[in-house]
Amino acid sequence: MNYLEALQKRYSVKKFDSTKKVDSEVLTRILQAGKLSASSLGLQPYRLLIIESTEMKQKLISAYHNPSQISTCSHLVVLISKKNIDERYVDGYFRHISEVREVGIESLSLFRKNIDGYTQNPNQQAIESWAEKQSYIVLGNLMFAAALEQVDTCPMEGFKKKEIEEILEIDTDKEGVTVTLALGYRAEDDAFQHLKKVRKPEEKLFKFI
Amino acid sequence: MNYLEALQKRYSVKKFDSTKKVDSEVLTRILQAGKLSASSLGLQPYRLLIIESTEMKQKLISAYHNPSQISTCSHLVVLISKKNIDERYVDGYFRHISEVREVGIESLSLFRKNIDGYTQNPNQQAIESWAEKQSYIVLGNLMFAAALEQVDTCPMEGFKKKEIEEILEIDTDKEGVTVTLALGYRAEDDAFQHLKKVRKPEEKLFKFI
Repeated sequence: MNYLEALQKRYSVKKFDSTKKVDSEVLTRILQAGKLSASSLGLQPYRLLIIESTEMKQKLISAYHNPSQISTCSHLVVLISKKNIDERYVDGYFRHISEVREVGIESLSLFRKNIDGYTQNPNQQAIESWAEKQSYIVLGNLMFAAALEQVDTCPMEGFKKKEIEEILEIDTDKEGVTVTLALGYRAEDDAFQHLKKVRKPEEKLFKFI
Repeated sequence: MNYLEALQKRYSVKKFDSTKKVDSEVLTRILQAGKLSASSLGLQPYRLLIIESTEMKQKLISAYHNPSQISTCSHLVVLISKKNIDERYVDGYFRHISEVREVGIESLSLFRKNIDGYTQNPNQQAIESWAEKQSYIVLGNLMFAAALEQVDTCPMEGFKKKEIEEILEIDTDKEGVTVTLALGYRAEDDAFQHLKKVRKPEEKLFKFI
């Protein structure tokens, strides 16, 4: 199956087959695709919670407008993005670059200057929004990889943010839940799988210049 | 090459080989992956400009902090997202669903109610930010598909928004340029291709619950 066929078969599952679990090796590969996502300045201003515990999924149901995916999925990935990028975080990033690439930190000073110029933006809302957008690239990569693995998904934004953050004990001064992704295998009786995919006509979506 | 190898080979190109163009069939497939991207409520609150004209790329160079990708890439994709979702847009969406799925519009009334409830949010900033995030899923899909096609990319946020919007004659009451993606083939002397990929250690990126 080529990647366009895989994306064509993908749809946002409304009900998973709760008896089928995503194999841990398959899940690991999907998460690797998330890890390899590009991010602005390489800062990866996010982290992922992977929820497989039935108990925790049960707890989270009340935070969702539509509970059926949460109660039936194999895994729920919660993408959490940073609200600010402090000096300590950037220091850690540069130490890590220095180790991986075996170069002195001082050789990275120009890059550091660029990053500081951006992350020291006094407009915290801008940083928060920028970090959220980076996490949507991860969301895209996870869905794409899952489609290639024939694992079904449903991206979910329809949750009560405060409630989900409380349940997951997120320090909301520093981070927030941005978006979530349910993974699993479509239930046979999920009627949505038979609907034709609707996408904007190309003349409205693309313009060549 | 499996998809993880492809993503591993991907890096943000600093200089493309300006003699190499992305074949139009390959480009079409990559754009199809963008078209097939998931979006919240299926609303696809975005469109894409695909810039292949050398003249237009030249014009845009001054809008970028780093001009080398723009002056050497084969194509530049500009992702434009909507700032508001008006009734007319939603009407068009429902007419389109009705046509594609061959169902009466009245049968979609519950879905319509959900969408209206969301898009009639008086907080325009929230709608704008939501639409921007959706376009980052497209960005992710384009980069992922390009990597599978062995086409190189560089996602670029480092531009002067007003300037790029003026050059592209965007009606900024309705839309804004969100992010751009340069496509092409890496130049042999782009030293960045030899650097080891740096990604957060997994214990900082993933937590299993």
